[in-house]
Amino acid sequence: MASTYTYKYFNVTFPQEYVAHVEINRADKMNAFFEAMWLELSQVFTRLSHDSSVRAIVLSGAGEKAFTAGLDVKAASQGTLGSDAGSGTPDAARKAFALRRHIAEFQDCISAVERCEKPVIVAMHGFALGLAIDLSTACDVRVCAADSKFAVKEVDIGLAADIGTLSRLPKVVGNFGWVKEVALTARVFGAEEALRVGFVSGVYESKTAAVAAAVELGVLMASKSPVAVQGTKEILNWSRDHSVQDGLRYTTVWNSAALQTQDVASALLSGIQKRKPTFEKL
Amino acid sequence: MASTYTYKYFNVTFPQEYVAHVEINRADKMNAFFEAMWLELSQVFTRLSHDSSVRAIVLSGAGEKAFTAGLDVKAASQGTLGSDAGSGTPDAARKAFALRRHIAEFQDCISAVERCEKPVIVAMHGFALGLAIDLSTACDVRVCAADSKFAVKEVDIGLAADIGTLSRLPKVVGNFGWVKEVALTARVFGAEEALRVGFVSGVYESKTAAVAAAVELGVLMASKSPVAVQGTKEILNWSRDHSVQDGLRYTTVWNSAALQTQDVASALLSGIQKRKPTFEKL
Amino acid sequence: MASTYTYKYFNVTFPQEYVAHVEINRADKMNAFFEAMWLELSQVFTRLSHDSSVRAIVLSGAGEKAFTAGLDVKAASQGTLGSDAGSGTPDAARKAFALRRHIAEFQDCISAVERCEKPVIVAMHGFALGLAIDLSTACDVRVCAADSKFAVKEVDIGLAADIGTLSRLPKVVGNFGWVKEVALTARVFGAEEALRVGFVSGVYESKTAAVAAAVELGVLMASKSPVAVQGTKEILNWSRDHSVQDGLRYTTVWNSAALQTQDVASALLSGIQKRKPTFEKL
Amino acid sequence: MASTYTYKYFNVTFPQEYVAHVEINRADKMNAFFEAMWLELSQVFTRLSHDSSVRAIVLSGAGEKAFTAGLDVKAASQGTLGSDAGSGTPDAARKAFALRRHIAEFQDCISAVERCEKPVIVAMHGFALGLAIDLSTACDVRVCAADSKFAVKEVDIGLAADIGTLSRLPKVVGNFGWVKEVALTARVFGAEEALRVGFVSGVYESKTAAVAAAVELGVLMASKSPVAVQGTKEILNWSRDHSVQDGLRYTTVWNSAALQTQDVASALLSGIQKRKPTFEKL
Amino acid sequence: MASTYTYKYFNVTFPQEYVAHVEINRADKMNAFFEAMWLELSQVFTRLSHDSSVRAIVLSGAGEKAFTAGLDVKAASQGTLGSDAGSGTPDAARKAFALRRHIAEFQDCISAVERCEKPVIVAMHGFALGLAIDLSTACDVRVCAADSKFAVKEVDIGLAADIGTLSRLPKVVGNFGWVKEVALTARVFGAEEALRVGFVSGVYESKTAAVAAAVELGVLMASKSPVAVQGTKEILNWSRDHSVQDGLRYTTVWNSAALQTQDVASALLSGIQKRKPTFEKL
Amino acid sequence: MASTYTYKYFNVTFPQEYVAHVEINRADKMNAFFEAMWLELSQVFTRLSHDSSVRAIVLSGAGEKAFTAGLDVKAASQGTLGSDAGSGTPDAARKAFALRRHIAEFQDCISAVERCEKPVIVAMHGFALGLAIDLSTACDVRVCAADSKFAVKEVDIGLAADIGTLSRLPKVVGNFGWVKEVALTARVFGAEEALRVGFVSGVYESKTAAVAAAVELGVLMASKSPVAVQGTKEILNWSRDHSVQDGLRYTTVWNSAALQTQDVASALLSGIQKRKPTFEKL
Repeated sequence: MASTYTYKYFNVTFPQEYVAHVEINRADKMNAFFEAMWLELSQVFTRLSHDSSVRAIVLSGAGEKAFTAGLDVKAASQGTLGSDAGSGTPDAARKAFALRRHIAEFQDCISAVERCEKPVIVAMHGFALGLAIDLSTACDVRVCAADSKFAVKEVDIGLAADIGTLSRLPKVVGNFGWVKEVALTARVFGAEEALRVGFVSGVYESKTAAVAAAVELGVLMASKSPVAVQGTKEILNWSRDHSVQDGLRYTTVWNSAALQTQDVASALLSGIQKRKPTFEKL
Repeated sequence: MASTYTYKYFNVTFPQEYVAHVEINRADKMNAFFEAMWLELSQVFTRLSHDSSVRAIVLSGAGEKAFTAGLDVKAASQGTLGSDAGSGTPDAARKAFALRRHIAEFQDCISAVERCEKPVIVAMHGFALGLAIDLSTACDVRVCAADSKFAVKEVDIGLAADIGTLSRLPKVVGNFGWVKEVALTARVFGAEEALRVGFVSGVYESKTAAVAAAVELGVLMASKSPVAVQGTKEILNWSRDHSVQDGLRYTTVWNSAALQTQDVASALLSGIQKRKPTFEKL
Repeated sequence: MASTYTYKYFNVTFPQEYVAHVEINRADKMNAFFEAMWLELSQVFTRLSHDSSVRAIVLSGAGEKAFTAGLDVKAASQGTLGSDAGSGTPDAARKAFALRRHIAEFQDCISAVERCEKPVIVAMHGFALGLAIDLSTACDVRVCAADSKFAVKEVDIGLAADIGTLSRLPKVVGNFGWVKEVALTARVFGAEEALRVGFVSGVYESKTAAVAAAVELGVLMASKSPVAVQGTKEILNWSRDHSVQDGLRYTTVWNSAALQTQDVASALLSGIQKRKPTFEKL
Repeated sequence: MASTYTYKYFNVTFPQEYVAHVEINRADKMNAFFEAMWLELSQVFTRLSHDSSVRAIVLSGAGEKAFTAGLDVKAASQGTLGSDAGSGTPDAARKAFALRRHIAEFQDCISAVERCEKPVIVAMHGFALGLAIDLSTACDVRVCAADSKFAVKEVDIGLAADIGTLSRLPKVVGNFGWVKEVALTARVFGAEEALRVGFVSGVYESKTAAVAAAVELGVLMASKSPVAVQGTKEILNWSRDHSVQDGLRYTTVWNSAALQTQDVASALLSGIQKRKPTFEKL
Repeated sequence: MASTYTYKYFNVTFPQEYVAHVEINRADKMNAFFEAMWLELSQVFTRLSHDSSVRAIVLSGAGEKAFTAGLDVKAASQGTLGSDAGSGTPDAARKAFALRRHIAEFQDCISAVERCEKPVIVAMHGFALGLAIDLSTACDVRVCAADSKFAVKEVDIGLAADIGTLSRLPKVVGNFGWVKEVALTARVFGAEEALRVGFVSGVYESKTAAVAAAVELGVLMASKSPVAVQGTKEILNWSRDHSVQDGLRYTTVWNSAALQTQDVASALLSGIQKRKPTFEKL
Repeated sequence: MASTYTYKYFNVTFPQEYVAHVEINRADKMNAFFEAMWLELSQVFTRLSHDSSVRAIVLSGAGEKAFTAGLDVKAASQGTLGSDAGSGTPDAARKAFALRRHIAEFQDCISAVERCEKPVIVAMHGFALGLAIDLSTACDVRVCAADSKFAVKEVDIGLAADIGTLSRLPKVVGNFGWVKEVALTARVFGAEEALRVGFVSGVYESKTAAVAAAVELGVLMASKSPVAVQGTKEILNWSRDHSVQDGLRYTTVWNSAALQTQDVASALLSGIQKRKPTFEKL
C-alpha cells in the first residue's frame, strides 16, 4: 500500500498494522514549509482520513536538526501574493482581499490535520518554531525529544501567528498567562517547560525514542475499535468549541448510530475470553 | 432528618451540620451502576438541591474495592433497549431514536449532580472507571485515595464515552493532549498523575482519609453564606460555557438580587467581632 | 511625558522606553479600592491603550504590605448605592436595577485593563485579596513575590465575586476543581501554589524582584513590532471566547490588514543583519 | 388507548389514527392555568412524546370564550411562593433563590411542549393572553379562529413575561419591531394582524373550523414517515439556536442514523406504486 | 428639567410625563452627522437611560427634508483619521489600527441607543439614508412618514455599512433576501415597502403625524410599570443574541429580583379597581 | 473568457460585463442532481469566487419544466454509498460513518455557493423541489417565475432535508411556523405564497422575465465597488450566525482594511461629477 502513498515533500510509511507515519521530508531546509508543501500536507491527511486501513497517524520531521523551522520565509516572499489582483498597484483593501484568501487557504490545509478522522500523534525534535506550533496544536497528542526548542516565533517577524496557534494553543494548554507570555515574546522554551505546562505529554531522550513512543501510542489506539476511537476524537473536538449542554446533545446523536456497531459485542466478548479483539474496517 | 432520606442504592447521612454524605451502596458489585441506580441518584441530588438544611455534599462509594467500576454491563445488556420500538425488528433509524432517548435520560440523571445548587465534593478510591469519570466531572471538586485507579474505559468496550466525560473532562483539566490520550487509549492512570494534571485536587493515603478530607472541605464551604456559595457555583458553571462578556453580564443580573441578602451584613459584623457568622436557611 | 500622567490614586512612570509602570498608590490603606479609584484606573488604561509611545504596561501596588487588599468595604458601605432610586424606600426590584448599573460600571472599569491594546503584566506581592484576583485576571501575564497571599475572598463577606474573577479565572487556570475550591472556600493560597496551578508565571523573592522581572518582560514585549504584539493580544482574547473556527476566521480578517505593515520587512532585515529592529509608532 | 390518557385538567383524545388532541379543560375559568395544571401539561406532553402510536398533536382550549386567559393570578397569589425558605422573613436574596427555582420549573413545564418529539399544532380562539403566547410559541405551528384576541399581557401586571414569550417570540416572528411593540405595550391584537406578521399560519371562521384545520394538518404530518418528521422538527429547533455551520454538522450526524430507516424505501416504493405508504412505529 | 438637557446638536423636550423627545437638530444640513454629533448622541441617551423621570423616548429629525441624510461626508473627510498615528506616512497596518479604533468608537456611540434602558421609538421622514438605518435599527420600534426615502446607502460610496446596519438589520427584518438586496444595491425604498417587510411598524401621512404616533406609543409604554417595561426590553435584546435555553435562564435570573417589585401589587390592585396605576420611579 | 468556462452540467455565460450566468444544464431530466453535478457546481462557484472579472452571478435552470426537480433519486440509489466500507456487510455504525462523510461532502458543495465571495441571485421557475430549496437558500437573493412550484420535499421520501434547507430556511424566512409547516408536510407552495412569506423577493410572469430581472439586479450590484459589495455579503452572513456585539466587532476588523480602498474616493468623485464610477478589479 505504501507504494501508492508517494508524495514529494512527505514520506508516508506504515510501521505497524493500521498505523501510518507521515514524515516531513525537507531536511536540508530544516523542514521549512512553502505553499506546495502545505497543499500536499492537506492531501496526505485528507486521504489518510478516509483510508480504512489506517487507524492512527504519527507525524514527525526528517533529519536531525528540526521538526520544522516553520515557514520558509524566502520562498514565501517569492510567492504568488500581490500578483493575484491583476495589473496595476492594488490598493490596501484589494491587497487585504488577496491576503484573506491566502491565509484562509493556508489555515484550511493545516486544519486538515484536525479534521482527519483518525488520531494524530506528533513527535517533535530540534527546532520547532512558528508553523511547528500551529501544526502541532492541530494534532491530538504531542510528544517530543529532549532537545526540542519551541517558539511561537511570529512576533519576531512582525506578525501575529495566523495559521492556528492563537486559536488552538489556549485550548490545548490551560495556562493562559503562559500562552500569552510565549506568544507575546517569541521566546524559546524547551522540552521540560513544554511538559510542565502540558503542551507535550511526554519527553524522550532522542528523536528516535520520541518517534518510537508515538508509534507505540498509535499502535495502542489502533488496537481499539475504530468506531470508538474516531467518535471520541470527534466529540472531544466538538465539545471544546461548545457548551457542555450542546456537547452532551451532540454526543447523544452521534452515539445513537455508533452504538449499533458490532464492535461493542466484539470488545465485550474479547474481554470475557481475554483475547485481543479484532474490529472490521471503517 | 436522615431517616427520611432512605434509598435503595444510596446511603445518605449527615456527618456534620449542613453537610450531607451520599454513598453509592452496591459494594458487592463494585458499585457498578444500572438504570434504577442512576434514576435514584438523580432523585437524591434533586432533593438535596432544594433541601435548605443542606449546604454541601460529599459523594463516595461503599466498600474497599471501588468508587465505582462503572456501568454494570451485564445489567445493561438485559435492559429495556431494543424493546422500546414495538414489535418486529426495528430498522437502524428506529434503534437510533430509542438510543437517543435512552442516552439523553442517562445523561440527564448524571447532570443532576451538576445542576444540584450546592457544591459537591467527590472522594474516590480503588477502581474508578468509565462512568466514574462521567460522574466525578459533574461534581465540583475531586479528591482521591492513593490507591485510585482511573480510566476513561469506554473505548475498551467499543464506544465513545457518552454520559459526560468527553464534554466535561476537557473543561475540568486544562491539558487537552492528556485528555485525548487517556480517552483514546483507555489506559489506567493513578492518583499521582491525576493530581499532576489537575483532575483531582488532593490525594490521601486511604479512602477513610479522602472521605474525611472531603467532609472537612464540605464543612468549610457550609460555614460560608449559602447565598454566596450557591451563587458562586452557578456563575462558575455558566461562565465555563459562555464568553467572558456574557459571564460578566449574567453575574450582574444574578448579584443584583443576591447582594440584597442580610448575609453580607452578618458576614461583615462577624468579621469585626471575630466570631463565626450564622446564616439563615436558603 | 510622565509629567502629564498625573493621577490621584495611581503613579504612572516610564522606567524604560515604550514601557509604562502603573502603581496603585494608596499604600496606607493597603491599596484597597473605592469607586473613585476604579474610575481613575479605567481612565489610566484607556489613555495608555491609545498612547503610541507605550507598548507594554506593568501594574503593581505601592508599599510593602499588599498589592491590594481588595475592596475598601468601609468606603463601599458609605457609597452612593441605595440613594440612586429617589425618595422613599425602593422595593427589591428597584434596588436590583440600581445594583446592576453599579456592578456593570465597576466591571467595565476593570475590563478596561483587558481592553487595553497593549500587553499588561501584573506584579503582585503581599496581600492580594478579592478585587486583586478580579484585576489580575484582566491582565495578560501574572508574576508575584514569594510573600504573596492570595484569596478569592468574596464568599467570606457573603457574596459571589462579581467583578470578573468567576468569569475569567476558569479561563486563566485550566484546573476547574481548584478554581471551584478556592472560590467556594475563600481560603488563602500562596505563591508556590499559584505557580503550580498556573495562576502566576513566575515567583520572585521580593516585590522589588517581581516588579523588575515584570518590567524586563515588558521591555522584551516592547522590543517587538507593536503591530504584531497588539494583534496577538487581541486574537488570543477573541479566541478564548469563540470556537476554533471563528477564531481562525477572525484572525484572517485581522491579519489581512496587519500583514501590510512595514514591520515585517524591518523585522526580517534586522534578522539578516543581526541587529535590533526599530518599528514605527502605532 | 385514550381511556388510559385520563387527566384532571386536560382531555386527551385521538380523533384520527396517530393524531392526539389535547384540550385544556378548565372552561369555567377561561382555561386559566395554576401550578397543578402546568405540571400535568408537562406529563401529558412527555408521555405523548414517547408514545409510538402518536405522530402529531393538536392543542386547543375547551369552551367558547378563551384558548386560555393566561395565568390564574388569584391561584398564583395563594401559591407556595414565599413559604419555601423556612421560618422568618427571608431577605430579598433568599426570595430570589426561591423565585428562580419556581420560574425555572414553570418554564420547564412549558418547554415540554417544545421538547415533545412530535409536531404540535395549536389552534387558538377567543382570549389568548399572557401564558397563551408563551405556550403557543413552544408549539410548532399556530392557527386561530377569527375571534382570537391575543396579548403579551405581562407588563400590564408589572412584570416581564418569563415563561418563554420573550425568548421564543422573536424567533417565531421575523419582525422585531412588532414583537417589541406588543411586548412593551401589552396591547391586544387580533387574528388578521397575527396572520400578517406571521404569528399564525392560518385564520379560520370559528374555533370549530380552526381545530378541524389543525387536526387535518396533523393528519397530513402523521401520514409521513415519523423518522423524517421527528428528525425535521429536531433539526429545525437546533438550527434556530446555532450557526448555519453547526446546524449542518448536527444534521449530518443525525441523518447518518436516520437515513438507515426502511421508511426511505417504503416511501420511494409507494411513490412509484402511487399508493399511500405505511411506516413502522417509532 | 428640560432646561438642563441643553445640547448643541439635539433638542431634548418632554412632551408628556415620563416621555422624552430627542430631535436631531441640524436641519440645514439635512441632519447629517459628524463626529461631535454622535459623541453627543451617546451622552444624551446614556443620560436618559439613567434618568428616573424618563420611561420612554422618541427620536426624530428636525426640518422637513430628512430624518438624517446620513454621514456628513465632507466633515468626515476633514476629520482626525490619518493624523492619529504620528509623523510620517503610516503603513496600511497602522492605518488599520487607527481605523478600528475609530469605527469601534463610532459604533459604540450608536449602540448607546440600544443600551439605553428605556424603549426608544424612532419616527422617520424624508431622506433616511445610510447612518439613518444604522441608527434606527438600534431603536426598539420604527415608524415613519409616507414621504420617507430609505437606503442602505454605503455601497454607493464604496464601503460596507459598518456602524450597525449589517449586524442589526437581519435581526430586525425576517427576510434575509430583501436585506441582502437593499444592502447590496443601495437602492431607495419607500414607506410602503418598509411596512410590508416589517422594517417599520406604521406609516403616517406626515412627519407631524408620525412623531405624534411615536409620542402616543411612548406615552402608552410609559404608563406601564418601568420595572416590567425595562426588563422586557433587556430580555428581548439578550434573547435575540442567544439560544432559547440561554434566554430562558437569563430571564429567570432577571425576574428573580424584578418580581419583588411593588409594581405587581400596584398593577393588580389598579386592575381590580379599574383605575390607572401609578408606579414609583426607577 | 467564457470559452474557458466549459463544464459538463452547467452552462456558464457572461451576459453583461462583470456578470456571470450559471445555468443548470440537464433539462431532459428536469435538472435533477447527482453526485458529479454537485461536485462540478462547487468547482464552478469556487472558480467564479476568485475570478476578478466577475462581480455578480445569476443561477437558473435550463429548459421549461423545472429549475431543478431536486435529487436524482435513481442515480443516488446506484451511487457509491454502502460500498465504501470494504468487504462484508458493514454494521449500522460503519454505515453511519460512510453516510456522514457523504452528507458532509454534499453539504460542502452546496455551501460553495454561500462561500462564493460575489453575490448570487437565483431565478427559479417550474418545479423547484427538495434540493432546489437547499440550493436557493445558499444564494443571496431569490426571484422566481409565476409558474414556480416549490416544496421542501424530503419528508415525502422518508428523510429530513440534510443539505441545508433546515439550517438556512429559518434564517432566510422570518416566519418559523410557516417554515415548520412546509418542512413537516412537504406540501407544494406557489410563487405568490413564496413572495408573501419572503422566500422570494420578486415574482415575474415567465422564466425569461425572471432571469432577465436577476441579470438586471446582478448588473446593478456589479456596478458598485466590489470591495463594498463583497464586504457587505461577508458581514451579513457572519452577522446572521453571531450576536450583534460579535457582528459589530468583526465588521470593525474587516473594514479597517477595506476602507483603505481607492474605491471610496472614486465613488465620491463620481457622485460629485454625476458620472458612473469605475472600480479596479478585485
